[in-house]
Amino acid sequence: MGKRYEVCLSGSGGQGIILSGIILAEALGLYGGKFVAQTQSYGPEARGGASRTEVIVSDEEIDYPKAIKLDLLLAMNQKSCDEYYRDLKEDGMLIVDSTFVTQVPTSKAIQIPFTKIAREKFHREIVANIISLGTITEFMDIISPKDMEAAVLARVPQGTEKLNRDALKAGVMAARKFKESVKEKDSQPQELQRED
Amino acid sequence: MGKRYEVCLSGSGGQGIILSGIILAEALGLYGGKFVAQTQSYGPEARGGASRTEVIVSDEEIDYPKAIKLDLLLAMNQKSCDEYYRDLKEDGMLIVDSTFVTQVPTSKAIQIPFTKIAREKFHREIVANIISLGTITEFMDIISPKDMEAAVLARVPQGTEKLNRDALKAGVMAARKFKESVKEKDSQPQELQRED
Repeated sequence: MGKRYEVCLSGSGGQGIILSGIILAEALGLYGGKFVAQTQSYGPEARGGASRTEVIVSDEEIDYPKAIKLDLLLAMNQKSCDEYYRDLKEDGMLIVDSTFVTQVPTSKAIQIPFTKIAREKFHREIVANIISLGTITEFMDIISPKDMEAAVLARVPQGTEKLNRDALKAGVMAARKFKESVKEKDSQPQELQRED
Repeated sequence: MGKRYEVCLSGSGGQGIILSGIILAEALGLYGGKFVAQTQSYGPEARGGASRTEVIVSDEEIDYPKAIKLDLLLAMNQKSCDEYYRDLKEDGMLIVDSTFVTQVPTSKAIQIPFTKIAREKFHREIVANIISLGTITEFMDIISPKDMEAAVLARVPQGTEKLNRDALKAGVMAARKFKESVKEKDSQPQELQRED
């Protein structure tokens, strides 16, 4: 990894964004031994129901804990995708919940229907955030899957460990499937991009 | 309130410090309409089991989201009291869990045995953090008790609402009792300071 890696997780209140941020920060910091700063800010826009958290990772002590230019943006709804895409680096990674984000600003967006998977596979929309953490784990080389699992299990309610472990795995598998679909698309340029 | 008010909540991992920080930030930001930035940082000291979160509150947009000089420090164990007291403003407020903090650096410290109350009154050590939020609500004029209750209830596990509401109230009552004991002490200078 470089010296500093900036992540923003965003969506609506109730999608578990803040919990995801804590889990991601703890996977990298508490379990992974990196320097991590995680911040959530509340202002007029939070009162509109938006939820956003920033996770900064570094090999060195972090002087400025807020994101300057994002390496990775997770957008769990259309509004946060529209609003925060401009904060992404040119070669940054955009991951969207394609259940709600139907218009992406770049063809390179990683589109995975986290909430649809949560509903259909687990009958619990609430695990969409944990599925998205599985996808992030697969795409962010600096996270160890073992550390992520430990961080998830330490933060989810007692009795929901199996559900959340399975949700995390579903996110990893969805990410791999997406990678495959991109490979296929590259070899068959006419084919439309598939979402799931 | 002034332009900027800085709070640090600190203790050991497992004392629910991060959750307290989120609840405090949401009470002030989501429910109270203030600008709030809440940060937790992980570095070598986190791996030693320490837990620390910072909540910055302002009437204006917050440019720098980390604490510079604290207005309020909550120390839930001795180590965090020893370590972070130096970050407190000269007229800042120190609140300690006197279950674990037996040596205070100032006679002005607000000493309340949060964990002892949690154990004895609720038979659940885990609510010590919610009790401490009740005390903070009583001492921090800018928090509305109604906003704090709403923020607590939105973040605690389903089914524990009554327990946590009662814990919050116990923290308010303990704070009032402490204020009374200080008044008594001031009128009877010979009396020893009482902890509970």
